[in-house]
Amino acid sequence: MITRLSTLFLRTLREDPADAEVPSHRLLVRAGYVRRVAPGIYSWLPLGLRVLRNVEAVVRQEMDAIGGQEILFPALLPREPYEATGRWTEYGANLFRLQDRKGGDYLLGPTHEELLTLTVKGEFSSYKDYPVILYQIQTKYRDEERPRAGILRGREFLMKDSYSFDLSEEGLAQSYRAHRGAYIKIFDRLGLRYVIVSAMSGAMGGSASEEFLAEAETGEDTFVRSTESGYAANVEAVITPAPPELPTDGRPPAQVLDTPNTPTIDTLVEHLNGAGVGRTFTAADTLKNVLVKTCKPGAQQWDLLGIGLPGDREVDMKRLEGSLAPAEVALLDDADFARHPFLIKGYIGPGALAANGVRYLVDPRVVPGTAWATCADLPGHHVVDLVCGRDFIPDGTIEAAEVRAGDPSPDGAGTLVAARGIEIGHIFQLGRKYTDAFGLDALGPDSKPIRITMGCYGIGVSRLVGVIAEQSHDARGLIWPREIAPAHVHVVIAGKDDTVRAAGERLAAELDACGLRVILDDRPASPGVKFADAELIGVPTILVVGRGLASGVVEVKDRATGERTEVPVDGVVAHLQELCTK
Amino acid sequence: MITRLSTLFLRTLREDPADAEVPSHRLLVRAGYVRRVAPGIYSWLPLGLRVLRNVEAVVRQEMDAIGGQEILFPALLPREPYEATGRWTEYGANLFRLQDRKGGDYLLGPTHEELLTLTVKGEFSSYKDYPVILYQIQTKYRDEERPRAGILRGREFLMKDSYSFDLSEEGLAQSYRAHRGAYIKIFDRLGLRYVIVSAMSGAMGGSASEEFLAEAETGEDTFVRSTESGYAANVEAVITPAPPELPTDGRPPAQVLDTPNTPTIDTLVEHLNGAGVGRTFTAADTLKNVLVKTCKPGAQQWDLLGIGLPGDREVDMKRLEGSLAPAEVALLDDADFARHPFLIKGYIGPGALAANGVRYLVDPRVVPGTAWATCADLPGHHVVDLVCGRDFIPDGTIEAAEVRAGDPSPDGAGTLVAARGIEIGHIFQLGRKYTDAFGLDALGPDSKPIRITMGCYGIGVSRLVGVIAEQSHDARGLIWPREIAPAHVHVVIAGKDDTVRAAGERLAAELDACGLRVILDDRPASPGVKFADAELIGVPTILVVGRGLASGVVEVKDRATGERTEVPVDGVVAHLQELCTK
Repeated sequence: MITRLSTLFLRTLREDPADAEVPSHRLLVRAGYVRRVAPGIYSWLPLGLRVLRNVEAVVRQEMDAIGGQEILFPALLPREPYEATGRWTEYGANLFRLQDRKGGDYLLGPTHEELLTLTVKGEFSSYKDYPVILYQIQTKYRDEERPRAGILRGREFLMKDSYSFDLSEEGLAQSYRAHRGAYIKIFDRLGLRYVIVSAMSGAMGGSASEEFLAEAETGEDTFVRSTESGYAANVEAVITPAPPELPTDGRPPAQVLDTPNTPTIDTLVEHLNGAGVGRTFTAADTLKNVLVKTCKPGAQQWDLLGIGLPGDREVDMKRLEGSLAPAEVALLDDADFARHPFLIKGYIGPGALAANGVRYLVDPRVVPGTAWATCADLPGHHVVDLVCGRDFIPDGTIEAAEVRAGDPSPDGAGTLVAARGIEIGHIFQLGRKYTDAFGLDALGPDSKPIRITMGCYGIGVSRLVGVIAEQSHDARGLIWPREIAPAHVHVVIAGKDDTVRAAGERLAAELDACGLRVILDDRPASPGVKFADAELIGVPTILVVGRGLASGVVEVKDRATGERTEVPVDGVVAHLQELCTK
Repeated sequence: MITRLSTLFLRTLREDPADAEVPSHRLLVRAGYVRRVAPGIYSWLPLGLRVLRNVEAVVRQEMDAIGGQEILFPALLPREPYEATGRWTEYGANLFRLQDRKGGDYLLGPTHEELLTLTVKGEFSSYKDYPVILYQIQTKYRDEERPRAGILRGREFLMKDSYSFDLSEEGLAQSYRAHRGAYIKIFDRLGLRYVIVSAMSGAMGGSASEEFLAEAETGEDTFVRSTESGYAANVEAVITPAPPELPTDGRPPAQVLDTPNTPTIDTLVEHLNGAGVGRTFTAADTLKNVLVKTCKPGAQQWDLLGIGLPGDREVDMKRLEGSLAPAEVALLDDADFARHPFLIKGYIGPGALAANGVRYLVDPRVVPGTAWATCADLPGHHVVDLVCGRDFIPDGTIEAAEVRAGDPSPDGAGTLVAARGIEIGHIFQLGRKYTDAFGLDALGPDSKPIRITMGCYGIGVSRLVGVIAEQSHDARGLIWPREIAPAHVHVVIAGKDDTVRAAGERLAAELDACGLRVILDDRPASPGVKFADAELIGVPTILVVGRGLASGVVEVKDRATGERTEVPVDGVVAHLQELCTK
């Protein structure tokens, strides 16, 4: 196929769009790939649609290769199934809701677990029917509070969502591994730099979950990785390594000190170091107790929860929420303190919590035998040498403390560094949340029902176009990987005389005849304008037909490296054919 | 590709679905192509999605062949552009409307004229940029009052909509002809029986419009066609042939008769035939005057309008509305009669209308020189021999009378018969409605602005799957045309012994290696079940590998004709390859 720039619906822009914050957004708009229709809602112009379809084809091939069967569900969905699983409400303001002319409630599907479960239930009945993997590449909707970065976080977007249905945990694990392998192939074929991070299963209640994060400074997701191993994880999923337990026998007894004017950890440490206790304290030697309240789903009341963590660390609310999900968590307000007078604000210690039956969970670093300086449940007083396992017994541990660069990697190799990324894929052993909700059973060989277990797996297909652009560009424009580029070769006719024009046309026709996709810049514009547009559009190979023709050569330019090669005009078609299909 | 029925997500049904009114709906559900999610909202299961994608590919190829450039617009659209053209309101209850989390008004796009016009305005400025044809194959939404017949009239559906932008009427006519040609190729490739009918441009205010109607008894659209020529038209678009004018000189004078107890045309005719006027009257000799009121868009008041038509015909409100659009039309109520005492109900004649300045339009059959029996503006009296052009002068003609089977065809060849069809395509010279609304101009060669003129063109892509099924099935199931069938060959392993199974597997693999798409029924089911499913699923060629294998033959069955051919097993792959690719 030859795409002529003289007639293509494309106008490149010299100026950056005013609302573009990230390079991919800026360049995709300037190069005429997408246009904004409303916040988070974009149109795909011809070149953009081609890249999108090419990405989609890669995803489809690899899903078919693991036996996925493609289906297509509607985007406009009735409320009832989402009501049955509670997601009609849980999605909150992120869900687009509407009513039809008869007042029936509908939503625009953000994901299709409910519908898939119901559909499988409608078709399948015997254990012989399983396992099955169903997928679709379909338009999804989420009413993001802050749509941003062009197609990277849109409100209408194209997703590949797949769902596995298995008879057993082993089956689910196998479907999960098959998806993991397919995702690696897809993202490798797309030339992406990415990491696979452990993700909290969180509210979804499943047993295993990983995210594929494309590395990007502009990414919204933070993750940590080891300086020495391949370990990478969402901050929410980092497991704090526990130090070895210490003996409690023969340790100095706890002693309460008068510690006036020590409202902060820093002032406390300073005070202790001047109090003649006989050793030096750091903030990491203090035990900070943070009170929150939690509410389990469906519960009528909130319960108090004390969290003990080293004084040099803050509570990371996202990690705390992840640890407590599906229960909700909130900080205490004045009314809570008033209701529980034993909570002496600023001086809450493990003692008062235990005495009043408040659940107390500690950071994994607080192991038996460790000694702490902490509050003494008495205004203006702290206690030192309070030994875990001797002077207080926590109810368990919790991952709630912030993760910091320099923390030891959970796999024991190296330390953690923070990095930013964009989520491009998510694989998730969902389990039986939806099959329980809709009673999806298979009749087993012994005629007993087997509750089906599910996995769900997503790839942001339209987002991938933005992510590839984000990872692969330079100051002059986009640089597409060959497999998904809008064309194999961008032919520039650089000159106005008839010989040059005729040669350009002929070469384009010959490349087309070889099965290559060709963009032909046959516009009357100047070579400078044409070169700039070729760099901006980002086809990986640029063929310049110009002055060299007099000496029988044309120029082949590699968009990524900038390398230019003079090639005899008679051999250039074979040369490019080999280059583009290798 | 080999699709194995042992693992395919497909369960055929022996029973018709309870809600299925038409054969295509019944069979597409029974054969496992689609499933209902909500009224007018369907899922596509694997085989259905393949047929849909095959149809889509045919449409895409022919749109590309006329130089259409594919783009993709969102389905979720902001209110403002539709407010600007008045369609936010005009669409009424047919439009799905919703609000986002910030209270912004959105709609689910039923068609995209506004967005396309705005986009072209954003990209193009010079006359050199035109003409351009843009198209998309995209999900559309209409909140139909009565979604019916499965995917034939859905609320979420796939459409190909294209838009042409031209500098001149001639350019528009050319874009229109290109689309007309492409549509003929598309529908011919899909093996459809269809007619192209003239359609009223109606409220859209354009100059030329045709509909492609697939012939189907279950269709919702009525049209008429000539018994002798290729003429076909929507009833609204039928032009009544006018008889030749007659001389008014020397005709008998009009005479008023006392006609008591003649409240209907029939009683009047009976009375006249017994009144000794000297000739025989029929209902077609009487002139019936119907009073309506009309209101032009934006007008503050309703105007009276008299319609004169032969007494043997009723007013067809859809034809009347089409003739008067964009003005609204309504029948008179008692208050209207009270306001205009000169209107003597049941006795209104041309005289009183002319005397009171009421506009009077007549059926095209009422030409100068024709003589009529009509009301005399006097209770209990009629007038005969009232000659048009002598005794009354109408203000013009109007197409408002019903069209009847047996009426002469407007092209002069044969008479009209009524038929039913399903709209599968619509081409429309839209003109400047949207370019006026958004001020879409091109800068001309003389630096003067040229207002762009538009065409819009639609094909119901998902509907086509239903229409093909509607036209191509028998009592046993679907019969797909080869180009869009879910597979080229349906291989049935009819027997349980290992030789048969191995031969079936080998033949399927060889057919696959030839590039044919193969469904392989490798299930442990009985041959009877497999044959029934093969007929139901409707792949055009069925290869039965069974008992004949012992004598070195397999059976090739043509699904449409039922013809069975025994073919040597060694030659069958070559035979099928030729059959499927010819």
